[in-house]
Amino acid sequence: MITSSSNTRMKYIIQLNKKARTRRQERVFVVEGIKMCLEAPREQIQEMYVSESFLADHCNQERLQGFAYEIVSDGVFSKISDTMTPQGILCLVRMPQYRLEDLLGEDSGRCRTGSFPGKADSYGQEAGQNAPHLLILENIQDPGNLGTMMRAGEGAGVTGVIMDGTTVDIFNPKTIRSTMGSLFRVPFYVADNLSETIGVLKESGVLLYAACLDGAQLYDKPDYTLPCGFMIGNEANGLRAETAALADIRIRIPMQGKVESLNAAVASALLMYEASRQRR
Amino acid sequence: MITSSSNTRMKYIIQLNKKARTRRQERVFVVEGIKMCLEAPREQIQEMYVSESFLADHCNQERLQGFAYEIVSDGVFSKISDTMTPQGILCLVRMPQYRLEDLLGEDSGRCRTGSFPGKADSYGQEAGQNAPHLLILENIQDPGNLGTMMRAGEGAGVTGVIMDGTTVDIFNPKTIRSTMGSLFRVPFYVADNLSETIGVLKESGVLLYAACLDGAQLYDKPDYTLPCGFMIGNEANGLRAETAALADIRIRIPMQGKVESLNAAVASALLMYEASRQRR
Repeated sequence: MITSSSNTRMKYIIQLNKKARTRRQERVFVVEGIKMCLEAPREQIQEMYVSESFLADHCNQERLQGFAYEIVSDGVFSKISDTMTPQGILCLVRMPQYRLEDLLGEDSGRCRTGSFPGKADSYGQEAGQNAPHLLILENIQDPGNLGTMMRAGEGAGVTGVIMDGTTVDIFNPKTIRSTMGSLFRVPFYVADNLSETIGVLKESGVLLYAACLDGAQLYDKPDYTLPCGFMIGNEANGLRAETAALADIRIRIPMQGKVESLNAAVASALLMYEASRQRR
Repeated sequence: MITSSSNTRMKYIIQLNKKARTRRQERVFVVEGIKMCLEAPREQIQEMYVSESFLADHCNQERLQGFAYEIVSDGVFSKISDTMTPQGILCLVRMPQYRLEDLLGEDSGRCRTGSFPGKADSYGQEAGQNAPHLLILENIQDPGNLGTMMRAGEGAGVTGVIMDGTTVDIFNPKTIRSTMGSLFRVPFYVADNLSETIGVLKESGVLLYAACLDGAQLYDKPDYTLPCGFMIGNEANGLRAETAALADIRIRIPMQGKVESLNAAVASALLMYEASRQRR
């Protein structure tokens, strides 16, 4: 049993929880809680740690059958945990690696073989339930918002989530928690150069919709059964003007009262679910 | 200038920020930040406090013209503030008092005079943009979720938000912040007895829709141009079975992938905006 938080592995976990840079260097992140640990792809789990109390709970022990784990004293566990009331189980998980093509849904094979036509209006046969449906994020700062977007995105059937490099780290412990497991199921891609990535998407025939307060078109008017991507910007400032200018159409969610903007996760969900509604 | 946090008023503010009970007893709550303080109804503001640094910023001083305020040292201000990086301005605001009728929108006069028919299918003339449109919450626990719901609700044009007594306090500092000012504009009502209140709504002709994972009807099928109320339950457990049973119709937001549920604020926003979309 590990009883000291100066144990090398314990220090390593604390660093992984705290620092996005350490996570990136090691290509590993920390997943906490029984539900999330059981949802993590088994082959990606590198190490598992459980607290004494967790083990003492018989029903939990059964759920761990087949997992290799190390036991940690409750005191040490509370130090390696990112939560106030730790469940007593965490694991180190290898980061998944998606290519941009992986985010373009079941039709993505077409993209790689170059048969995706360059123009959206020639898209007839790819339209529908399986057409690419993307969420594209710029400079999202709140870890909880990002996680909530992934969760709503999975529910709405997005084929992937693209983030620029200034968006909060998707492996931030708070983000992971608020994805409620969607992190393991929704393909995602961090774009080093967002405008370049947007260029690639446009060439693949994805129609890009920028959520803007002054968008000319109401969000429920376009035909989202075609391949589509919703661009959402920073919580306080929205999309940068240069980024919004790359979109095919600027859309607007109408707001009554004196509301200046919606929460970024709420706005994303409204757009993704409008696409989902149209595709049903 | 107030330079000690053991000053009676400073202690009072700290208590108001910390304790829902103190807020209820005093019928006063704390609003922080320049934007929120300027949005608070002037006649409801009882006291205002600004930090030294805040005052030193010339442009801020101009915005305070006409307000009576006391100056507080930066050190003390950081203690009375609920945020990590205080803006340096807060005020004590008297709680608003809404009656249930105030939440029934522009047609609410009918309700009080008893001319609201008891059955929804006789509702022809009340349908449309101004018909009652309510969000009804049971046991919401996350202050940020509640605030986000108020904000999205104002945007979607709800006529009011009803909460049961086990829902987190709407005057919680985090809730207030995440309403982004909607707290001052959306009528709300805390029901001592939610099923009784629901009974009153039904008698007034409001059709009640319970958001349930096993709802029989898809959320975009009903006609929400009629007076409607969306019932949303606890983040982890949803509505209590007894509460859901009071609804006229149980509705479901379809979810793809392996998502078990949506974030409560996201689910609320999808429902309220579907009503808003239909009423446009």
